[in-house]
Amino acid sequence: MTNKRQKEWEGFKLGRWSNSINVRDFIQRNITPYDGDESFLEPPTSDTKKLWEKVSALFEEEHRNGGVLDMDTETISTITSHEAGYIDKSLEKIVGLQTDKPLKRALQPFGGIRMAQAACEAYGYQVDENVTKIFTSYRKTHNQGVFDVYTPEMKAARKSGIITGLPDTYGRGRIIGDYRRVALYGAEYLVDNKKHQLATALIRMVPKTIQLREELQEQINALERLIELGDIYGCDIRKPAKNTREAIQWLYLGYLAAVKEQNGAAMSLGRTSTFLDVYIQRDLVNNIITEKEAQEYIDHFIMKLRMIKFARTPEYNTLFSGDPTWVTESIGGVGVDGHHMVTKTSFRYLHTLTNLGSAPEPNLTVLWSVSLPESFKRYCARMSIETSSIQYENDDLMRPTHGDDYAVACCVSSMRIGKEMQFFGARANLAKCLLYAINGGVDELTKQQVGPEYRPVKGDILDFDDVMSKYDDMMDWLANLYVNTLNVIHYMHDKYCYESIQMALHDREVLRYFATGIAGLSVVADSLSAIKYAKVKVVRDESGIVTDYEIEGDFPKYGNDDERVDSLAVDLIRTFLEKIKKHYTYRGSVPTASILTITSNIMYGKKTGNTPDGRKMGEAFAPGANPMHKRDTSGALASLASVAKLPFRYAMDGISNTFSIVPGALGKEDHVFIGQIDLDQLAACGPDIACKIPIKYEEED
Amino acid sequence: MTNKRQKEWEGFKLGRWSNSINVRDFIQRNITPYDGDESFLEPPTSDTKKLWEKVSALFEEEHRNGGVLDMDTETISTITSHEAGYIDKSLEKIVGLQTDKPLKRALQPFGGIRMAQAACEAYGYQVDENVTKIFTSYRKTHNQGVFDVYTPEMKAARKSGIITGLPDTYGRGRIIGDYRRVALYGAEYLVDNKKHQLATALIRMVPKTIQLREELQEQINALERLIELGDIYGCDIRKPAKNTREAIQWLYLGYLAAVKEQNGAAMSLGRTSTFLDVYIQRDLVNNIITEKEAQEYIDHFIMKLRMIKFARTPEYNTLFSGDPTWVTESIGGVGVDGHHMVTKTSFRYLHTLTNLGSAPEPNLTVLWSVSLPESFKRYCARMSIETSSIQYENDDLMRPTHGDDYAVACCVSSMRIGKEMQFFGARANLAKCLLYAINGGVDELTKQQVGPEYRPVKGDILDFDDVMSKYDDMMDWLANLYVNTLNVIHYMHDKYCYESIQMALHDREVLRYFATGIAGLSVVADSLSAIKYAKVKVVRDESGIVTDYEIEGDFPKYGNDDERVDSLAVDLIRTFLEKIKKHYTYRGSVPTASILTITSNIMYGKKTGNTPDGRKMGEAFAPGANPMHKRDTSGALASLASVAKLPFRYAMDGISNTFSIVPGALGKEDHVFIGQIDLDQLAACGPDIACKIPIKYEEED
Repeated sequence: MTNKRQKEWEGFKLGRWSNSINVRDFIQRNITPYDGDESFLEPPTSDTKKLWEKVSALFEEEHRNGGVLDMDTETISTITSHEAGYIDKSLEKIVGLQTDKPLKRALQPFGGIRMAQAACEAYGYQVDENVTKIFTSYRKTHNQGVFDVYTPEMKAARKSGIITGLPDTYGRGRIIGDYRRVALYGAEYLVDNKKHQLATALIRMVPKTIQLREELQEQINALERLIELGDIYGCDIRKPAKNTREAIQWLYLGYLAAVKEQNGAAMSLGRTSTFLDVYIQRDLVNNIITEKEAQEYIDHFIMKLRMIKFARTPEYNTLFSGDPTWVTESIGGVGVDGHHMVTKTSFRYLHTLTNLGSAPEPNLTVLWSVSLPESFKRYCARMSIETSSIQYENDDLMRPTHGDDYAVACCVSSMRIGKEMQFFGARANLAKCLLYAINGGVDELTKQQVGPEYRPVKGDILDFDDVMSKYDDMMDWLANLYVNTLNVIHYMHDKYCYESIQMALHDREVLRYFATGIAGLSVVADSLSAIKYAKVKVVRDESGIVTDYEIEGDFPKYGNDDERVDSLAVDLIRTFLEKIKKHYTYRGSVPTASILTITSNIMYGKKTGNTPDGRKMGEAFAPGANPMHKRDTSGALASLASVAKLPFRYAMDGISNTFSIVPGALGKEDHVFIGQIDLDQLAACGPDIACKIPIKYEEED
Repeated sequence: MTNKRQKEWEGFKLGRWSNSINVRDFIQRNITPYDGDESFLEPPTSDTKKLWEKVSALFEEEHRNGGVLDMDTETISTITSHEAGYIDKSLEKIVGLQTDKPLKRALQPFGGIRMAQAACEAYGYQVDENVTKIFTSYRKTHNQGVFDVYTPEMKAARKSGIITGLPDTYGRGRIIGDYRRVALYGAEYLVDNKKHQLATALIRMVPKTIQLREELQEQINALERLIELGDIYGCDIRKPAKNTREAIQWLYLGYLAAVKEQNGAAMSLGRTSTFLDVYIQRDLVNNIITEKEAQEYIDHFIMKLRMIKFARTPEYNTLFSGDPTWVTESIGGVGVDGHHMVTKTSFRYLHTLTNLGSAPEPNLTVLWSVSLPESFKRYCARMSIETSSIQYENDDLMRPTHGDDYAVACCVSSMRIGKEMQFFGARANLAKCLLYAINGGVDELTKQQVGPEYRPVKGDILDFDDVMSKYDDMMDWLANLYVNTLNVIHYMHDKYCYESIQMALHDREVLRYFATGIAGLSVVADSLSAIKYAKVKVVRDESGIVTDYEIEGDFPKYGNDDERVDSLAVDLIRTFLEKIKKHYTYRGSVPTASILTITSNIMYGKKTGNTPDGRKMGEAFAPGANPMHKRDTSGALASLASVAKLPFRYAMDGISNTFSIVPGALGKEDHVFIGQIDLDQLAACGPDIACKIPIKYEEED
C-alpha cells in the first residue's frame, strides 16, 4: 500500500495507517474532538420516521407472534447464504439483513444442531430434514464435539449448576471484528494483507502452526465471501469507502457478515462512532452531506443494529432474562495522550435514542473518564435520565491496560480492537462451591455426589477456619474442572465453529483472554462473614446433608464499606483467579475473571440451596459484584466503596455493578449528575463498573 | 468380561484373551498347526462356481464398460449409507457389498470432493449437486484442509515430482483394523470396552487429550454403526460369532465398514486365516461343518474381497499402473516361541487361487520363514508357479520387531494388528533431489526454481566431494519439506477424514509410524558411483542449467554385490532417514522409511530428467530397491546380495525387490524352489523383500 494514495483517502492525514493496517493511527491523526453541546443535532428525517414506523410495526408483529416473526428452516446461514433483503428499499440508506426478510431468524447450526432445532420448535417451526441430516451425518457441530469429550464430572457440574451458562450449544461470541477496517481499507486490501500474513506465517508444521495457517486461509475465504455479500447488496466493498454513507455501509456489511456466520451470545460492534466521525467531518467540510443526512445515516445504521436477532431457545431467554444480543458500541473515552475522543458522532449515536426512542440494543456504552468534555457528560446524564439506555464503563481504569482503541464486548469485557480476543467462559458458581465444601461435594439440592468426596463439615456450628480450608480445596477442584471444561469448549469451537470473518478483521497474532467468571460473590462474602463473626448452626436432612443454616447474632455485610467482610470478597476473587491460573489454558490464552452476572444471577440463585448468609434456596443472587439486596444499608457511597475495593487486576474481564438510584443517595457537589448521581465520583470509585441502565430518575421526596 | 464365559466360546481354551481384548493370545492358545500337505483341500462347490460365474461376468461387463460398472453419485458413503446389496442372495454364504449393487462404486468425498468428482466425471458420471454443495459449503474435506495450509514450496515440490504420490486428495489408507475382534468378541463388548477406554482416558484437557477423547467417542459411534450394518444384512454382530460362517461374516462386516468409510490407497485385511482356522477346526471336530463347507465359506469371503473397488481417477490408475486395492492378507509366519503358525486355513486361502482362479487381490502374502513346514513351502512354491499370485515377506526379519501378530499393509508395511498404525507418506524422489543439488534447486525439466537457491555445481566435470556436499544440503532441505508436508497431511486427515471404525478396532494407545519413502535409490547409487569412479561431464542448456551428462569410463553399478557402490546406497538410506528424524513428526509418530515403489517408479521416472548414471530423461526408475534394469550383470545372487545389504533398521517400513526369475539363475540345492528359486535362500538374503508375483515359470532351455 506504501505510496499508493488511495483516492478514497483524499482529505485524510496520511500516516502509519496508510502503509499498514492501523485504524487507531487513522483516528488519532484525523479526529476532530468536539467540546460543544448537543444543539447541533438534527431530528429524524421523514424517511427515517417512515422506516422506523415500519420496523416498529414489525417488532410489534413479532411480539404478537410470540417473540418471533419468521424463521428460516432450510437455508444454512453463511455470509452469502441469502439474497438481498430489505425493509423498504426505497427508504433504506443503509442496507443489509441477516436473511432475506426483516426479522426472519437465520438458521445457524454450526454451533449445535439440537439448539437450532429446539429454537425452531419452540416457535412451531421445524428444521428441514436435509439440514438435520447434514449436521448429524456429515458435518459435526461444536456442540457435538464438546459433548463427545466432556467427562461425566463436567456434565454433572454443568447440570447441577456449579458451572453455568457455558457456550457449548451455540456460538461463544464475545469476539469483536474490527469492522472499521472494511470501510477504511476496502476488502481487497484486507485479502491481500491476509495472504501476506499466510505467506509469512510459520512453516514448521506443528499442530499450532497448521491451525494458524488453516485459519488464515479460512479468513481469506471469509473476506472473499464478504466481497460477495457486498455484491449481493450492490456495494463494491473491494475498494475503501469514499464517503460517509459508504463508510457506514461497508462497516455494517462487515458486522453483518459476522452475525450471518455466528450466533454468539454477545456479537459486539466495537468502537465505531469516532472513526465514522472522520468521514462525516470530511463530507460536511466538503459540503457533500448535511448534518441532517449524517444523522439519517447513523439513524438507519442504528436501526439495522436494533434488528439483529438470533434464533434462541426459551432456556436461553430464561438465562438471560430476555433475548439480548449485546451489540455493544463503545463511545467516547480518552486517548493515551490525554485528549478526549468525543466527537459530534458520539452525540449522534446517543441521539438515536431520541430520534428512534430508547432501546436496549445496540448497547450504547460510554467509556467514561473524568477528562471527558463537560458538555458531553451533561448530555450523557440527560440521555440516561430520559432513556435509561446508556451503559457506562470506566475508561480511566481500562485505558492503562488496553490503550485507547479498545472496545467492550458484551457488558464489560474489554479488548483492543482487532488485536485481542476473548474465549468466553461464562461462570463458576462460588456460592454453590461453598455449599459443596460444607457437604463434601454432595449437591445440596439433588443430593448427588457431584464434587469430590472430600470430608464434609462435622458438628453443628460452622468453624471459620475449617470451612475456609474445605472451601479452598473445593475451589481447587472447581477451578481445575472449570478450566478443563473451557479448554474443551474453545478447542471445539475453533474446530467446528470458527469465527472466520471476525478473525479476518483481526491481526494475525492476537492476544487471547481466557475469560472465567464468578457468580455469587456477595453471597459467599456474607456467608463467610456470618460464619466468622456470627454463629452459624447447620440444619441437616435425614441423610446428614446440610440443607439449611441458622444464624445467631449479627455480622458485617458486604456493601457497607466494612473492611472485615469486603476483604473476604477481595480475597475470594484473588484466590479463585490464582487457582484458575494454575492450569493449562488453551492456545496460550491469558486467564482473566469477571464478576458480571447482570441477569443470569436470577437463574444461578434458582440452582443454589440455602446459604450460610441467610439467603434462602432459589433466591436470586445479587447481580455481578453487587451487594445482596437490601443489605447495603450504609448508603450508596458505602455500597460503591465496597465494590470499588475489588481489584481490577484480578477481574480484568470486568466487574459489573447494577445500580438503581434514588436521587440524593450521594452527596451533591458541582459536578455532572444523573439524577443526583455524580458520574465522575462513580468513575473514580475504581473498578470497571458497568452500571447498565436501571438508572431511573425519581423525584426526591 | 471376566468370568463371563460366553457360550459362543465353548470349546475354546480360555486365557488372557477371554478377560480382555487379546486376539494373539486367543490364537496362540487355540491354534492347530498343520504340517501336512494340500491333499485335504476341496474343489469349489456348485454354488461357488455359479456365484463366481456371476461375479466374473460382472467383472467382464465392468471391463467392457471402460473400467467401471456403475457409480453412486448421490449417496455419501458411510458405514450405514446403503441398504443391503447382493450378487445373488440365494448363493452367497458371506454377504455384504460396498453399496447396494455389486461393483457399484461408492461416493467417498470426505478425503476430497474434487477427487470424487473427477473420478465420476472420468467415467461419464456427475456427482449430485447437493453433495457438492455440502462438501464445498458446509463440510470441509481432508484435501481442502491440506491445500489451505500447504506452502507455495510444498505445492511446487509436489507439482515438480520431487515429492510424489502424497495421500492428500483421498484417504491415506495403510491402517489395518483388527477385524478379527468383531468375530471373537462381538461388537457390543467392543463398544463397552471403548467406553471404558474413554472413561479412563486422560482428563487434563490439553489439545492432544481432547483429540484422543473425541476420537474414542467417534470410535464408539462407528462401532454402533457397525452393529447397524450387521442389522442391515440380518447379522446380529452384537454377540461373538458362534460358528465358522459367523466368524467369517462378522470379520468381513468389520472390514466392509472400513471400506465403506475410507477409500485409502491400501485397505489391507490383516492376518485372518489362522484366526479363522480355530473356528473351522472347532466346527469340523464337532461335525458342524464339512471341509467342503469350510472351503466354500473361504471361497465366498475371498470373492467378496476381490470385489472391493474404489472410485479412482485415471491419474490414480496411471500412478499405480492399474486400480489396486491392496487388500493384503498375511498368511503363515512363525510364533515368537518358534512354532510355525501355518494351519489348514493357510492352505484354504491359497487354494482360492485354484478354486476361483488367480487374481491380484486380495494380496495373499506369505510371511516366509525358514521354519515354515516343508509341505506348506512346497505348496506355496507350486501355487506361485501356477498362479503368479503370491507375495512373500520375510517373517524371520520382521518377527523380532513386531512379534507374531503383525500383518502387512499394502506391499511391505508391517504393523502389529490393532496396536500399531501408520501415517502413510508416499515418497521423496532422491534422484531428482540429486539433480536439484547439481542445479542449485532449479528443476531440470521445468527450469523453475523449486528448491532453495543454493550454489549450483560449476565447471564441466562433476567432483564427487562437491556433489556430495551439495547433495547433503539439498537432502536436508528435502527432508525438512517432506516431513512438514506429511505433518500437514496427517493433521488434516485426522481432522477431516478420521478412520473411526478402523481405529475402533485398535487399542486406545497405538504406536504410530511416520512412514516416509524413497524413490530412485539405484539411480542415485549408480550416479554417485559414476561421479566417483568414472568421469562425468555435464551438458548445460543455454541458461547454464545442467540437463545431461556424458560419462567417460566405467563404474561399479548397484546390483552386482560390489561394495564400492552398494555402500553408497546404504549410506543414502541411512543419511536420509537421519535427516527425516531431525524434525518434529505429528502425534509422536516414529519415523520409518520404505524403498518400495512397485509400479509408481515408472511415473517417477517420467518426472525426472537425465541422471549422471546415464539414465535418460523419462526412463523408468528401477522398482523399489531393485538395481537398474540390466545393470545387475553378475547374476541373480549378486543382485540379491546388493539389495540384502540395505539395512532393515533404516527402512523398517519395508524394502521391495521385484524379481523376474529365469530358472537356473540361482544355484540348486536340496531346498524348496519356485521354478529354480530357493525361497529359503531368498528369505535368508536379508531385507524385507516383497517379491510380488512377476515370478513366471519358464522351462530351462
